[in-house]
Amino acid sequence: MRITEFQQLIHDRYYQTDSARGAPATFLWFSEEVGELAQAIAERELGDGDPVNLREEFADVLAWLTTLANVTGVDLEDAIHHKYLKTGGPDGPK
Amino acid sequence: MRITEFQQLIHDRYYQTDSARGAPATFLWFSEEVGELAQAIAERELGDGDPVNLREEFADVLAWLTTLANVTGVDLEDAIHHKYLKTGGPDGPK
Repeated sequence: MRITEFQQLIHDRYYQTDSARGAPATFLWFSEEVGELAQAIAERELGDGDPVNLREEFADVLAWLTTLANVTGVDLEDAIHHKYLKTGGPDGPK
Repeated sequence: MRITEFQQLIHDRYYQTDSARGAPATFLWFSEEVGELAQAIAERELGDGDPVNLREEFADVLAWLTTLANVTGVDLEDAIHHKYLKTGGPDGPK
């Protein structure tokens, strides 16, 4: 699936609610998902990870990042293109 | 660009460094980028946003999320497929 298609899907499905919530509150929800991802990674580090849950947390963080992009009017594929594709991307650790 | 292609590109370009750094330190770098995104969104809320910088911060967070997925062995497109495509996705606010 293209990044653009996923952003459109999240837009079509949730934009009305998302835009009414606004950027600050959407960032709060995004942060909650980042915390859940942190927990899943920490459990994995301790040898007690759940691969299905880990996968789900990645999906949620990506969905909420995409939501934030919708709410703030950013095209994610365009963003990646400018930073990582057009110039070959940053050297070193990004 | 497909999500899978972007993940492969980040893998090809940075995986050697990323895997040596490991998941905890990669999460730290990811969090730093999340903080920079928060700052760009906050400036936008105050009417003092820089759209080019905002776009760049989204690209960085997505790149570091993708890096985290590489380091923890998660296929992002597969993750999205299971959570948001296969079943039609969660109702309500995701």
